[in-house]
Amino acid sequence: METKPPPWTLAEVAALIGGRLVSGGDFSVRRLVPADSDDPNGLAFVEGESYLRRAEASKVGALLVGDGISSAKPHVQVDSPRRAFRKLTDACRREPRLNPGVHPSAVVDPSAQLHPSARIGPFAVVESGASVGARSRVCAFAYIGDDCRVGEDCLIYPHAVLVQDVRLGDRVIVHAGAVLGADGFGFEWDGTGQRKIAQVGGVVVGNDAEIGALSAVDRATVGDTLLGDGVKLDNLVQIAHNVRIGAHSVIASQVGIAGSTKLGERVVMGGQAGASDHLDIASDVAIAGRGGVVRDLDAPGAYLGMPALPAAQARRAMVAYTKLPELRERIRELERRIAELEQRGE
Amino acid sequence: METKPPPWTLAEVAALIGGRLVSGGDFSVRRLVPADSDDPNGLAFVEGESYLRRAEASKVGALLVGDGISSAKPHVQVDSPRRAFRKLTDACRREPRLNPGVHPSAVVDPSAQLHPSARIGPFAVVESGASVGARSRVCAFAYIGDDCRVGEDCLIYPHAVLVQDVRLGDRVIVHAGAVLGADGFGFEWDGTGQRKIAQVGGVVVGNDAEIGALSAVDRATVGDTLLGDGVKLDNLVQIAHNVRIGAHSVIASQVGIAGSTKLGERVVMGGQAGASDHLDIASDVAIAGRGGVVRDLDAPGAYLGMPALPAAQARRAMVAYTKLPELRERIRELERRIAELEQRGE
Amino acid sequence: METKPPPWTLAEVAALIGGRLVSGGDFSVRRLVPADSDDPNGLAFVEGESYLRRAEASKVGALLVGDGISSAKPHVQVDSPRRAFRKLTDACRREPRLNPGVHPSAVVDPSAQLHPSARIGPFAVVESGASVGARSRVCAFAYIGDDCRVGEDCLIYPHAVLVQDVRLGDRVIVHAGAVLGADGFGFEWDGTGQRKIAQVGGVVVGNDAEIGALSAVDRATVGDTLLGDGVKLDNLVQIAHNVRIGAHSVIASQVGIAGSTKLGERVVMGGQAGASDHLDIASDVAIAGRGGVVRDLDAPGAYLGMPALPAAQARRAMVAYTKLPELRERIRELERRIAELEQRGE
Repeated sequence: METKPPPWTLAEVAALIGGRLVSGGDFSVRRLVPADSDDPNGLAFVEGESYLRRAEASKVGALLVGDGISSAKPHVQVDSPRRAFRKLTDACRREPRLNPGVHPSAVVDPSAQLHPSARIGPFAVVESGASVGARSRVCAFAYIGDDCRVGEDCLIYPHAVLVQDVRLGDRVIVHAGAVLGADGFGFEWDGTGQRKIAQVGGVVVGNDAEIGALSAVDRATVGDTLLGDGVKLDNLVQIAHNVRIGAHSVIASQVGIAGSTKLGERVVMGGQAGASDHLDIASDVAIAGRGGVVRDLDAPGAYLGMPALPAAQARRAMVAYTKLPELRERIRELERRIAELEQRGE
Repeated sequence: METKPPPWTLAEVAALIGGRLVSGGDFSVRRLVPADSDDPNGLAFVEGESYLRRAEASKVGALLVGDGISSAKPHVQVDSPRRAFRKLTDACRREPRLNPGVHPSAVVDPSAQLHPSARIGPFAVVESGASVGARSRVCAFAYIGDDCRVGEDCLIYPHAVLVQDVRLGDRVIVHAGAVLGADGFGFEWDGTGQRKIAQVGGVVVGNDAEIGALSAVDRATVGDTLLGDGVKLDNLVQIAHNVRIGAHSVIASQVGIAGSTKLGERVVMGGQAGASDHLDIASDVAIAGRGGVVRDLDAPGAYLGMPALPAAQARRAMVAYTKLPELRERIRELERRIAELEQRGE
Repeated sequence: METKPPPWTLAEVAALIGGRLVSGGDFSVRRLVPADSDDPNGLAFVEGESYLRRAEASKVGALLVGDGISSAKPHVQVDSPRRAFRKLTDACRREPRLNPGVHPSAVVDPSAQLHPSARIGPFAVVESGASVGARSRVCAFAYIGDDCRVGEDCLIYPHAVLVQDVRLGDRVIVHAGAVLGADGFGFEWDGTGQRKIAQVGGVVVGNDAEIGALSAVDRATVGDTLLGDGVKLDNLVQIAHNVRIGAHSVIASQVGIAGSTKLGERVVMGGQAGASDHLDIASDVAIAGRGGVVRDLDAPGAYLGMPALPAAQARRAMVAYTKLPELRERIRELERRIAELEQRGE
């Protein structure tokens, strides 16, 4: 459903989300804001007591509240404020505008195949053998290299780079500055220097995947680096050559996954986590932020720390770590007491 | 004060910085160099004994020294060599050259507002509703997206990207390849896949802020991600959606700050440090490199380690950590001695 | 030797690599693949038993095996399958295609010096005083800033940025999105804010170096940031101002090296490792992934952990760390037993 973007009256909001208007139907909602915003034209949602306290203490103009909650501010009651708010944020989404067709400044190789409904922005480059599917948008400065394939309904943000031999599924989003298909990092010492190992494989990205800004997904040495359906990468993530990431895995910012490591499905990795090369990580494993995986993880569940251990064990080790100086002190004390006992016994 | 760039005679240098020429007034300074440089046409500054030793051992051509220090090399004496040297480096600064006006290759939307004194470089794109203030420079390949605002006297380096709804104050510098305003990383499992939570907020950057090369500052889910006045980000930094960073904070390279975390003023974070989401970090906190903040930090001061602890405590834990094998050995020894005592007592 | 790219018959493969065709000379090799690929048109190499098992269990079409190994699949025997396979991957390498000369859309300053055999791609920018040497290729969207020098036979991938005063040797590869020559991160608190310290030095890169995608190498404050001959940087690496890296060093992804630190030759740093500022790291040091160097390392050898310790010591500490809760338990038990002994003695 396409909804017109703000401004909305609060009465319109109530109608949009199927909520009950309690007060302030004429209030003009200019934008959606968090509950602690001081924006007098903003609408925030309130879920539970702490949100309500923050909202009442702030200058936010209007509220979306749960059934039975009321406020002196203009507000709408609804069954699930969070879900209703999502509907509104969806309506506020404005993707980069691109005119139909190919911008006159774009450079498209004659051998490239562009679907007639695809849109190509200013200064975009589409190289030989590349293709762009139906309704896909390639924004300004995007580079679609030799023999790359962009599926249908994809959105390639400004300055995204598909170097060569990258194949995207449908509905894939590639954010600004991401680089897919650069050479994997492979060298061999030949006695006098590091000799480059040619990287001639590709990158394959499944449907509904999303690649964050400034993330790098290297091409395989041979074969393909693989991101499964629905995989989400945050910003500044490094995916090395021949890595395989199972469907619906979620990889937070600044994670690095070294060469040939294989993640199962629905794996979650927190910010700045990492995994060494040639590992197997089972489906439904969750690695906490900064976690460092250095061996295979066969069992689903939460892992933590460097090296990454099962969460309960890791938490005990971490607590003990913060108390290490005290432990040392206790050992010193024990040594003293034992020496005394030993002396006494002589 | 605009000063002509090198070459300078050493006599000119003395005049520029108000120093006392001791020897070599005709010496031609081609460039500024560190004290251990072997550049015979270079000028280095010397502060203290170790600098002097390095400078005397190197082939550097001329020196800027403190009062009372002398050298066989051509040199100028000055009260504070470091401060005087800064004046000279300022004079050497050459920002990317841009001709006045809009480069003919740039693509500017008719609805964009460019101040007549703004300069727009080759292949720059300025989208609908965007504005660029007086004397600001937008370099080659920069992308100023829909409804973005660039204040006065800003410098947007080549390949910087402002995706959408990014508002910069005055005198802001955005380095090459930085991406501001990409979508925050928000998804919700809907039973079959990760459903995208629309990210419709903005990014607000205060006056005199600086964003390093290849850093990412995500737009808020709703409301704004906020960098205060004078905030400095180094390269490859990740600032997630709805983060707020107080004025004059300094964030070194490869730091990651997760969603909705709030930093006070003058916070310092060393390289590769990180902070989890939804935390509060007080003003005047300093996190050492690689430090990992996992809970609120209410007190100003230095923190260290993962998890980040007050520096003194963390240092003790770290020292104890490096001696862990020895501690184990001591425990083993205690167990042996106690067993002996117990046996004796039976 | 220039070899035609695939498809090849297996007989052609045998001839190319000087191997012995055992079976399937007419088999058509479409691409090179890993041993566990299910590509029926793929050729994989097999080295040792585990490779062979994987290859036999997969649907891969044909194999390159060691002398004396045989298979039911079409295969070629050769002395060193790995080395022979390298020859084939070399033959598959296709660098971005650029037509001879300067693309009509490129913007080249009249003062720039381009060798007649250099190739400049669409939307490339070459600024004043810059030069590009013989046979070098500057791809789409690359930015060669003021007074930058690109040597001979270099390959500058799309979206690479040389900001200013960057000098590359010969045969240097700069991958997509890398930024060389951005300002180093230098500020000074002036009582009211962070005052920028002008960064006016350069970046010097030796011959045969390679800079990964989205890596940042900052210009020096004064003097030069230096990457020696044959240095290889992976993706998303941070090299701060005035760092010096000795020849043939290999720096994996997401490593950060802070200001003025000096690495000897053949130093290896694993993924996400880091080094503090102003350190000296000896030649032939190897830092494991995530290792954090916080003091000078004078002796060659392997280092591990945060802080980075000699590998054997670090491994013992890491093992002890994972057993910390158990150590605490043992200390508690010792305390109980001693208390009992003490009581008994009273």
